[in-house]
Amino acid sequence: MPLFEGVVPPVVTPLTSDFDVDYEAFDRVVDFLLEAGVHGLFVLGSTSEVVFHDEKTRLKIIERALRRAGGRVPVLAGVIDTATDRVIAQARAAQSAGVDAVVATAPFYARTSQPEIVDHFRYLREALEVPVIAYDIPVCVHIKLERSTISTLAREGAIAGLKDSSGDDGSFRYVLADTAGLPDFFAMTGSEIVVDSMLNLGAHGVVPGLANVDPHGYVRLWNLCRSGDLAGARREQERLCKLFEIVWLGLPRISAGSAGVGAFKTAMRSLGIIETNTLARPQRALNGEETARLDAILRATGLLE
Amino acid sequence: MPLFEGVVPPVVTPLTSDFDVDYEAFDRVVDFLLEAGVHGLFVLGSTSEVVFHDEKTRLKIIERALRRAGGRVPVLAGVIDTATDRVIAQARAAQSAGVDAVVATAPFYARTSQPEIVDHFRYLREALEVPVIAYDIPVCVHIKLERSTISTLAREGAIAGLKDSSGDDGSFRYVLADTAGLPDFFAMTGSEIVVDSMLNLGAHGVVPGLANVDPHGYVRLWNLCRSGDLAGARREQERLCKLFEIVWLGLPRISAGSAGVGAFKTAMRSLGIIETNTLARPQRALNGEETARLDAILRATGLLE
Amino acid sequence: MPLFEGVVPPVVTPLTSDFDVDYEAFDRVVDFLLEAGVHGLFVLGSTSEVVFHDEKTRLKIIERALRRAGGRVPVLAGVIDTATDRVIAQARAAQSAGVDAVVATAPFYARTSQPEIVDHFRYLREALEVPVIAYDIPVCVHIKLERSTISTLAREGAIAGLKDSSGDDGSFRYVLADTAGLPDFFAMTGSEIVVDSMLNLGAHGVVPGLANVDPHGYVRLWNLCRSGDLAGARREQERLCKLFEIVWLGLPRISAGSAGVGAFKTAMRSLGIIETNTLARPQRALNGEETARLDAILRATGLLE
Amino acid sequence: MPLFEGVVPPVVTPLTSDFDVDYEAFDRVVDFLLEAGVHGLFVLGSTSEVVFHDEKTRLKIIERALRRAGGRVPVLAGVIDTATDRVIAQARAAQSAGVDAVVATAPFYARTSQPEIVDHFRYLREALEVPVIAYDIPVCVHIKLERSTISTLAREGAIAGLKDSSGDDGSFRYVLADTAGLPDFFAMTGSEIVVDSMLNLGAHGVVPGLANVDPHGYVRLWNLCRSGDLAGARREQERLCKLFEIVWLGLPRISAGSAGVGAFKTAMRSLGIIETNTLARPQRALNGEETARLDAILRATGLLE
Repeated sequence: MPLFEGVVPPVVTPLTSDFDVDYEAFDRVVDFLLEAGVHGLFVLGSTSEVVFHDEKTRLKIIERALRRAGGRVPVLAGVIDTATDRVIAQARAAQSAGVDAVVATAPFYARTSQPEIVDHFRYLREALEVPVIAYDIPVCVHIKLERSTISTLAREGAIAGLKDSSGDDGSFRYVLADTAGLPDFFAMTGSEIVVDSMLNLGAHGVVPGLANVDPHGYVRLWNLCRSGDLAGARREQERLCKLFEIVWLGLPRISAGSAGVGAFKTAMRSLGIIETNTLARPQRALNGEETARLDAILRATGLLE
Repeated sequence: MPLFEGVVPPVVTPLTSDFDVDYEAFDRVVDFLLEAGVHGLFVLGSTSEVVFHDEKTRLKIIERALRRAGGRVPVLAGVIDTATDRVIAQARAAQSAGVDAVVATAPFYARTSQPEIVDHFRYLREALEVPVIAYDIPVCVHIKLERSTISTLAREGAIAGLKDSSGDDGSFRYVLADTAGLPDFFAMTGSEIVVDSMLNLGAHGVVPGLANVDPHGYVRLWNLCRSGDLAGARREQERLCKLFEIVWLGLPRISAGSAGVGAFKTAMRSLGIIETNTLARPQRALNGEETARLDAILRATGLLE
Repeated sequence: MPLFEGVVPPVVTPLTSDFDVDYEAFDRVVDFLLEAGVHGLFVLGSTSEVVFHDEKTRLKIIERALRRAGGRVPVLAGVIDTATDRVIAQARAAQSAGVDAVVATAPFYARTSQPEIVDHFRYLREALEVPVIAYDIPVCVHIKLERSTISTLAREGAIAGLKDSSGDDGSFRYVLADTAGLPDFFAMTGSEIVVDSMLNLGAHGVVPGLANVDPHGYVRLWNLCRSGDLAGARREQERLCKLFEIVWLGLPRISAGSAGVGAFKTAMRSLGIIETNTLARPQRALNGEETARLDAILRATGLLE
Repeated sequence: MPLFEGVVPPVVTPLTSDFDVDYEAFDRVVDFLLEAGVHGLFVLGSTSEVVFHDEKTRLKIIERALRRAGGRVPVLAGVIDTATDRVIAQARAAQSAGVDAVVATAPFYARTSQPEIVDHFRYLREALEVPVIAYDIPVCVHIKLERSTISTLAREGAIAGLKDSSGDDGSFRYVLADTAGLPDFFAMTGSEIVVDSMLNLGAHGVVPGLANVDPHGYVRLWNLCRSGDLAGARREQERLCKLFEIVWLGLPRISAGSAGVGAFKTAMRSLGIIETNTLARPQRALNGEETARLDAILRATGLLE
């Protein structure tokens, strides 16, 4: 059986208007997600604005999540950094804090080749006790984890799983085929909008940023897929696709990054879960006009009255 | 008069075979560069493998460079990090250590827009005393600092200078034109191979990784350009172009990043300046066969007997 | 009801070893596909090496296909050219020859914007009687047909359908949603490897180059999806995914284009359908060693004894 | 001595408002360029909107140019098409018409590798009598002619020259070095804005689209560079850089392609050389407001009173 499965939202990091982490709001987010029935929490992912936070803050976020989750679900922590030894240092801190797994990308800023990326994950494996999950997110890292890189690492046991945010469904399918004989290995999709397809292909879970806004929807979608209700799953997914359109409201005024996480935070503010839609600097938040259009989408998809 | 000008090498960070910084070798590198007559030192740039080092190590490197340089030339320090507040934290440490300027890129990993990048540098300006130099290196950061971004920041005084490693000479020329009326502003090229052209266009300096291998060559090139000896400058540049071919010897076995910095380190080892050609993990160093071909190039360009 | 649906292979154009079209082999390919039960033929697509053939040859291919198909299934013809008026000229010739629809991309070589691409398809609509299908293939055209471009054109009736070879399944799903209220509009995927997923999402058909090698497989897959046998469809698709691995055998010795179409032709030669695996100049064909590995895949997927 | 040298403008193709070629205006453009002293004419390049014209029109344009030029300067003709045998067919027609050389790109739309591109040019060489010039324009063709591709072809004599519109000045410099021992080979830059630099590096000529607007400027620039007046050349180049800003006036309303050639045509209309600023379909022309800003630039650079 794979180590983790199901809906594992990348948890948004709420900020005060002074750009500090709002830990009380963070607790409310954790509660909101757990009450909706999610199967795990992924803190310090891209949706968590991880790269905007320093090591000390990152550790505090991990500790807060672990305390609030209280063992009810596994907690995965992103250890997103530019190079091997920096990732190891962070991962050791996360491991000591008690996370259930760490999630690491290929190196970034520096350019590395696929064989060097294979070595990177082998070094992590040697240095750590906790399971390591490979995070494939070329839109941020600017290199794709190739199918053979992932499959090699999976077969060696260097990685326990994959979080695929590459948008390359064909490649993801081949990874599922390559690792089908590895009962412990799991592969999760980072997509918000083709989750039914990916679960039908054999994905073990989903890590959707949008689940911060509508965790119930993704839990329903997961259950519908598990029960084999294809048509019901498709209907739920299509509602979530409509909701996902909030991520484009800020474009092109702000960047795709700010528009996406900014939309999640703005929606969560509209839903009363967090206090501000502030993003870490230098990102710009959604403005009033964009918020009005966002609220209309929340209403159209049944989240707001 | 611009704050800095001339040849300002991005100083290689020598490692022991155990992947620790070799500070004695580092001192020798600094001496080698200063004795050749370079006009400044840029520590913690891409060529320095900056993103492989943690904050503590980065600060030690800065301190070592300042101590060894002993005020003979200005010392610029890269404060390369993913987002505004992380950059500010590092820049404050560098400032306290006594650097003459800090060098910062746009945010990376997270995607930001040009207006957000403008804000990023404005926030740095507000938070710091020391001059801030914008570093345009899209091959690492995956976004270009647009001409209007640079010109806006230069006019506001938010940035004191530019280090251009974009390879977009046309855009660089427009920046020079836009800032021609700003007597304090300076623009340096990060190119190794069109330095004569860029100096003829009005660039105030050059930051060539290859100067770690042949600082005398770049100092000669600078002097030839200053004296108006176009033909002599071209001859010297063409010799340096031939030398620069060492950066492709490792391809495609290793990545462009490893092949480039790896070639500089390997050449410096052949020249007796440093002890190893070890690169920070997970980068792979040049092998024996590649080193033999590299040495042949060193001989062909007059650096090795 | 949409104009077309089902499995519509992009028909390979067999060549003699002298680089002429081998029309007898072409007839055999058409027979092979029709006997397998495909629902339409798409001649002069990318898989047909359309851009290697001149206008006169293109017309002969269309006429040959129409004659051989004899009205048993609709025949769609690619009218792939760089700009509007060139596309119109070719489309008029195809229309006069009697094709059931033409398939056109955005302009290429010249750079155009999305509004200009919308105009491009409007001009085609005005100039032609025959239905126009938009062909989204950014790997060749180097621009994506944006969702709003496609939806605008579909609502206006400027395009009757879409062939999506973009690999962007999320965007394709949004197009399906946008056009759900347009009963005549149809959207086909050009994927070979996520066909079950795309049909489950509501795609009206599939245009797989690999169907030249295994049309029975894709017809089976279509029927399994229509009958709601999700597990059976997935099994068939996974066999086809294994077969699709032939397209990578030539890499990196030859280009992705040559390796892909070259693999289809080589497999068809191994199966006795065509005489040569020759590709139009300057493409290089698969060599003997690659052919041996390809035959092993044909055996492993049940196509060769 | 190289076959060609100097200023060789890619000649704009004027259109009537009905999208036909305006041959009388074309003659005026040729006269305008020749009277300014350009050293050759390049018809049917990207600036000529070559890919919008069919073969018959292309041949008429060649014949018109040859007749009007009347042997006063060499006439080079672009033979821009997707694949080898299509290029050969066009090149034979151009050769029969009497052009002095043909200019060909790598294949496009279809993806080819560097070895296949080398073969492409070898096939052209075998099939033709006329000199073949390689045209490196990755912004249109979406692949770069690598240094080793160009140098191999130059050494073999398969290509007589290079037109470099890649913007990669470093690579261009290496090609100049590689071919320095080939007295017949020539390399021209397609840049408008670093022409002084490229000529100082040893380029044999320049093919600037902007010379349609200000041929006198580029001839002056050429002469200043030849006479070694570096400062004078830089001043002239900087004026031309200011003029070149017209190519961005249409952005982002229209595409970079339309904005660029559209600006040249609009300026030529303002200067009374051609009648319309119409672009081939589906490109959109500059509008009135953009034209007003363009005229202001013409005035500021001394071209309009």
